[in-house]
Amino acid sequence: MNPLYRDMPTTIFEAMSMRARETGAINLGQGFPDGPINAAVIAAACDAMHQRSNQYPPMIGLPELRDAVAGWYARHQALDLAADEVVVTSGATEAIAAALLALIVPGDEVLLFQPLYDAYLPLVQRAGGIARIVDLDRTSWRIDPAGLTAAIGPRTRLIVFNDPMNPLGTCAHPDDQALLAQACVEHDLIAICDEVWEALVYDGAEHRSLMQQPGMRERTVKIGSAGKIFGLTGWKLGWMCATPPIARVLAKAHQFLTFTSPPHLQWAVAEGLNSQDAWIATARAEHQASRDFFCAGLHAIGLATIPSAATYFVTVDLAASQVPMDDVAFCEAIIGSAGVAAIPISAFYAENAPSHLVRFCFAKHRATLQAALDGLARAL
Amino acid sequence: MNPLYRDMPTTIFEAMSMRARETGAINLGQGFPDGPINAAVIAAACDAMHQRSNQYPPMIGLPELRDAVAGWYARHQALDLAADEVVVTSGATEAIAAALLALIVPGDEVLLFQPLYDAYLPLVQRAGGIARIVDLDRTSWRIDPAGLTAAIGPRTRLIVFNDPMNPLGTCAHPDDQALLAQACVEHDLIAICDEVWEALVYDGAEHRSLMQQPGMRERTVKIGSAGKIFGLTGWKLGWMCATPPIARVLAKAHQFLTFTSPPHLQWAVAEGLNSQDAWIATARAEHQASRDFFCAGLHAIGLATIPSAATYFVTVDLAASQVPMDDVAFCEAIIGSAGVAAIPISAFYAENAPSHLVRFCFAKHRATLQAALDGLARAL
Ligand SMILES: CSCCC(=O)C(=O)O
Ligand SMILES: CSCCC(=O)C(=O)O
Repeated sequence: MNPLYRDMPTTIFEAMSMRARETGAINLGQGFPDGPINAAVIAAACDAMHQRSNQYPPMIGLPELRDAVAGWYARHQALDLAADEVVVTSGATEAIAAALLALIVPGDEVLLFQPLYDAYLPLVQRAGGIARIVDLDRTSWRIDPAGLTAAIGPRTRLIVFNDPMNPLGTCAHPDDQALLAQACVEHDLIAICDEVWEALVYDGAEHRSLMQQPGMRERTVKIGSAGKIFGLTGWKLGWMCATPPIARVLAKAHQFLTFTSPPHLQWAVAEGLNSQDAWIATARAEHQASRDFFCAGLHAIGLATIPSAATYFVTVDLAASQVPMDDVAFCEAIIGSAGVAAIPISAFYAENAPSHLVRFCFAKHRATLQAALDGLARAL
Repeated sequence: MNPLYRDMPTTIFEAMSMRARETGAINLGQGFPDGPINAAVIAAACDAMHQRSNQYPPMIGLPELRDAVAGWYARHQALDLAADEVVVTSGATEAIAAALLALIVPGDEVLLFQPLYDAYLPLVQRAGGIARIVDLDRTSWRIDPAGLTAAIGPRTRLIVFNDPMNPLGTCAHPDDQALLAQACVEHDLIAICDEVWEALVYDGAEHRSLMQQPGMRERTVKIGSAGKIFGLTGWKLGWMCATPPIARVLAKAHQFLTFTSPPHLQWAVAEGLNSQDAWIATARAEHQASRDFFCAGLHAIGLATIPSAATYFVTVDLAASQVPMDDVAFCEAIIGSAGVAAIPISAFYAENAPSHLVRFCFAKHRATLQAALDGLARAL
């Protein structure tokens, strides 16, 4: 057995969801919404299952979906992608796995940024890569130029960048994107950009991809997720976009990971991307309102937060809140005392983790958020 | 970029399906049926999408489906599996990828048997394994004991075994299963058994797994596919079964490949496995009748076949049929002259390929098979 997997714990998201199921706690841990959910794409998926094929679609995805993804990015992000630059995957996790397996040659160094989504490091390692981890500044959550420079060496080939960022819900500063782009161009690196939260950016901001920085169009793999756009996280449908010479190699890794993804989901998501812009805007406004509601509630009970600009998540700063517990102890305590499950941010660090930060998912009904706030108020 | 993927062609199945779409040829290449398709599981999937959750199910799969898989194997194969020995995957390809990534330590040797399904070798290589390829005897399609012994060395850790076997549609001889089991026990090997065709075994035979051989229960990963059982190859829902200490490690690889699979498909397949035994038997009889119809037609036009005991496939022996062409040339010729796409068996060989064998998919409507036979008759 491979020791990486033999010695690996179950993901914190899964572990916390299991704890929540066992204890009956309100699950503000794992990132999934209890609404809004797009009914039109669900109806389209059923229609497709009944009226169209349930057999293998093309390995790189249905042309309808690849066109729709390109069209959606053109409208929403002023990004000019061709359909043959889109490879459909069974969720963004598969896209990340395929991209890392396709692009890493054993011994290559790969830059990761902390906090980091938990799939990145084990996938880099299993692909034979050597991770070089750059810490984001723990106040501004921005890239420290000296830290970036120090981490890049002659064997560096790739960076993995998550923007908007899970867990903190921050969006990359344009200056940081420019800095990264310069580094990629200067050192001939490819950037794998996990942008699954791109449709959930708040306060009127619009997502712009690292791919749009000078010199990055030909060296970026941009990863997206239909589950996040339509509030259907279980659908596990995503994509990776890259210039054709890269996309062709990504597709080869994909063909031996899942080969293809269910055609009814592909047709439904294509229809959704083509027709549901108004719904997507409404969903975004509703999530923003949930964020505001939940953050106001947290503040009212004395819990300070890091400003969340995107995603389903807001992070509480225990130190700034004068809560004398570390993140793991706090999560342990509140699952019992408040009946609320959350995620310790240390789970997003491979080394030197801060211990004063806890992530909450606010993509829940008001009543659920209120019940969680009531539980936290009682417990504190 | 990883040279394995950079230099890799698109799978032969995909390539041939594309050729068929371009030329309008009847596609008897890639293995997917145009019927029978189970309508009850499609209806159940729609119901689940409307009435149950569309969010992340548990990473290892819904308990309903894991129970149903165990129950189905108990009824159909007299196999005693617990639900916690089942890990749900996004198709059998993902299961194979997860198992190889989880079980191979770079430098491990892995036994493969030729002909081999095209995903095995690149996945073994990308996982860092060293493939040792054992040729099946080209007349009996059985394992040569001397060849097996010669291929096993001190670094051998795994075997990958496909039974029933794609492409030839043969079922492993019980003596060969016993031989493999002995070798696995003697050399402390784990067997990854790709048994996706287990529900499509003809002529009254019943599938028995290598897992059921003495000493194999604790050292076998048994892989299955809902798509094959219900004729819904696009659904991409499968599973891997193994004793808990192995299943736990497999799950860790799965959690960073796709994490989980769509819950509506999981509920629907659970319902199907629990309630559709009669339909599954009927589907099997229909495929057997299609096989008989198609083989009779091939024989009538002078094409000799290797007996097909399972799968969607039958293989024509060009040499025995006195057709003076190699398999690739024959497939090239008939896509134009007969309007029929097929797969050269040399695509299932990593080395020393025979050149006289061509695979046809018979899981098609009678009219389609007849049109293909008419085309072949005209062309020959
Ligand atoms: C794949 S489970 C994790 C979901 C998620 O994105 C999160 O909770 O951070
Ligand atoms: C994943 S496409 C190949 C389908 C199949 O099993 C075959 O045609 O052999």
